[in-house]
Amino acid sequence: MSNAIDELQAIIAELKTEVEEQRAVIRQSRDRIEHMSAEVVDSNPYSRLMALQRMNIVKNYERIRDKTVAIVGVGGVGSVTADMLTRCGIGKLILFDYDKVELANMNRLFFTPDQAGLSKVEAAARTLTFINPDVRIETHNYNITTIENFDNFLNTITGGGTVAGQPVDLVLSCVDNFEARMAINAACNEKCLNWFESGVSENAVSGHIQFLRPGDTACFACAPPLVVAENIDEKTLKREGVCAASLPTTMGITAGFLVQNALKYLLNFGEVSDYLGYNALNDFFPKMTLKPNPQCDDRNCLLRQQEFQARPKPVVIKEEPSTDDEPLHASNDWGIELVAEDAPTEQEQTTSTAVGQGLRLAYEAPEKTSSVAAPAPVDDTSLEDLMAQMKSM
Amino acid sequence: MSNAIDELQAIIAELKTEVEEQRAVIRQSRDRIEHMSAEVVDSNPYSRLMALQRMNIVKNYERIRDKTVAIVGVGGVGSVTADMLTRCGIGKLILFDYDKVELANMNRLFFTPDQAGLSKVEAAARTLTFINPDVRIETHNYNITTIENFDNFLNTITGGGTVAGQPVDLVLSCVDNFEARMAINAACNEKCLNWFESGVSENAVSGHIQFLRPGDTACFACAPPLVVAENIDEKTLKREGVCAASLPTTMGITAGFLVQNALKYLLNFGEVSDYLGYNALNDFFPKMTLKPNPQCDDRNCLLRQQEFQARPKPVVIKEEPSTDDEPLHASNDWGIELVAEDAPTEQEQTTSTAVGQGLRLAYEAPEKTSSVAAPAPVDDTSLEDLMAQMKSM
Repeated sequence: MSNAIDELQAIIAELKTEVEEQRAVIRQSRDRIEHMSAEVVDSNPYSRLMALQRMNIVKNYERIRDKTVAIVGVGGVGSVTADMLTRCGIGKLILFDYDKVELANMNRLFFTPDQAGLSKVEAAARTLTFINPDVRIETHNYNITTIENFDNFLNTITGGGTVAGQPVDLVLSCVDNFEARMAINAACNEKCLNWFESGVSENAVSGHIQFLRPGDTACFACAPPLVVAENIDEKTLKREGVCAASLPTTMGITAGFLVQNALKYLLNFGEVSDYLGYNALNDFFPKMTLKPNPQCDDRNCLLRQQEFQARPKPVVIKEEPSTDDEPLHASNDWGIELVAEDAPTEQEQTTSTAVGQGLRLAYEAPEKTSSVAAPAPVDDTSLEDLMAQMKSM
Repeated sequence: MSNAIDELQAIIAELKTEVEEQRAVIRQSRDRIEHMSAEVVDSNPYSRLMALQRMNIVKNYERIRDKTVAIVGVGGVGSVTADMLTRCGIGKLILFDYDKVELANMNRLFFTPDQAGLSKVEAAARTLTFINPDVRIETHNYNITTIENFDNFLNTITGGGTVAGQPVDLVLSCVDNFEARMAINAACNEKCLNWFESGVSENAVSGHIQFLRPGDTACFACAPPLVVAENIDEKTLKREGVCAASLPTTMGITAGFLVQNALKYLLNFGEVSDYLGYNALNDFFPKMTLKPNPQCDDRNCLLRQQEFQARPKPVVIKEEPSTDDEPLHASNDWGIELVAEDAPTEQEQTTSTAVGQGLRLAYEAPEKTSSVAAPAPVDDTSLEDLMAQMKSM
């Protein structure tokens, strides 16, 4: 009998050791933090961000806690986008995706091999909450392009803002197919929400971001997006036994451009780029602006254009009179001034070369618009360049 | 007695449940993979990288397994650099740092809150091995600028290559202070090793990478690095109760540029940039090339310059005659042709503006060189621009 007890106690000792050993391996996150502090101590995860105020880059950094961003597509670009915004302390992230993590995704940043098989939104939410428990994460595990899901998507971006019932502050498209981009475009045109498009080419060596403001800039249906990458839905490709190439570099850089411009927009500093491309082979970065097409197929785009044109355009008016909103750099009073008037010409990087590699038009411009009112870029020089570009592609 | 046994068995059942619960939380990595396969299946972590061959971007991707890269500094830029190279399946990484992870680092990618207190190289090595167990990780937890450690550093980069006793294929500098950069410069000049410099400004909104090839381009001591960011050792700043600002975006983009150009160099595709800058406020990307200073203070730099000038410079000669090495894009036969001769002028982005913000000369050029042989950029236009730049800063 006492032998039996000894044996059981030995088993208990062994199990206790195992529990202790495992506990040492299990990762512990940090506690939530009520207010962002600028205090310079090693334990403050926000000190380097709050320092942006002392450096005169951002007037009020903590406003980022009031912002909600929707990210559609949590793959190579979307997951890094979510990671960056989470580390910046964004108030709330709403993630949309319906794909699963696979080992084949490990050549891009963010996901880890242990997450293979999990849904991307679920895996991302766990990691993001672990990295920064102050960020509210909401996940939607469905394809936004079906009719029912599109309605859910529309309702979520319209009413899922930081204040319940208010729209999100920004929508970021990180999807890999045309249909999803058109769905986001339709939703944002209908609800007049500003959004960023992003993409990488299937040969992995170019990418771009584009800022779309309904009525103000060309929408995704207005024009063939000039330097949209050759994206093909990965599912289609995989059926054929081939896959698109991808690199953590190109996707990380594209996510970096996307979040940097999102931060400039949300926190009111610097100049937000309307379009920024990246060609990795020669480190070339085309920039441009596209005006909306007055004969766009999307009727909500036309409505937004009318509203935009009807708006008074005074020289200096701030949307919100609070001093917190005064831009520290350049003019970026969204909805009033569109193209930076003082952009020096030597910084114009829109040239007719170097975007050909791995890039093609996402779709052909509708016949009726091609001769009547092709989307007009901001200045004549750019127009010629764009035309030359289109011809050469 | 049987009561005691029941009690013990209840404890055992409880502990077993706890062990099971913990086991579910503990992350499992993947098994090692002998050869990189191009097979398109969800379980292949290299399919998207091997696709670079089918896309005609890289001739032989698997050669990356033969490459060793040393990363000095595993902070905001260096850790993401290591992450990207690990996911790309680099053969071996050698990491140098002597700092600890802090919660104050959580506003940049890669490290997680549970790692606070661990040495950066140790924390990085664990995560990287977890992400890709095929990559050999070697860590050096010391400051390379002390005399003894400098010798260790020198020996490691000279003999720590993939083949024992051979040098590493590339050194990447991701440090945050001038002394460490000068130490890397001295080592690479002495051993004639190519390296990349990188940096971000203390206001977090600009960054750069620079490719240094001893004898061929300006070394770090040749000239005031023109657009080197205002880096101050974080330790100095913290003593004063202030800290540099940083953003995951700028650091991720800088790491992306660094690794992308390292990949182009190691795998022989595209054009490697000699210098690529990034200004986040207006998405401006200056590029330039600096020739070595014939009166450089570093005697090894002068030796390398003599060797370089003595080398025959035929129009077309490959360093290795293997067909695997034929470049797929442009000319990048290192050590033979330096500046891409066919770079179209419309892509020249070296202008006299927009690098001022947040940037200053890292140090003053030595008196003797300023009037005699200031580092000459590749063409005269650039020289004027650079001078204008220097004056305006």
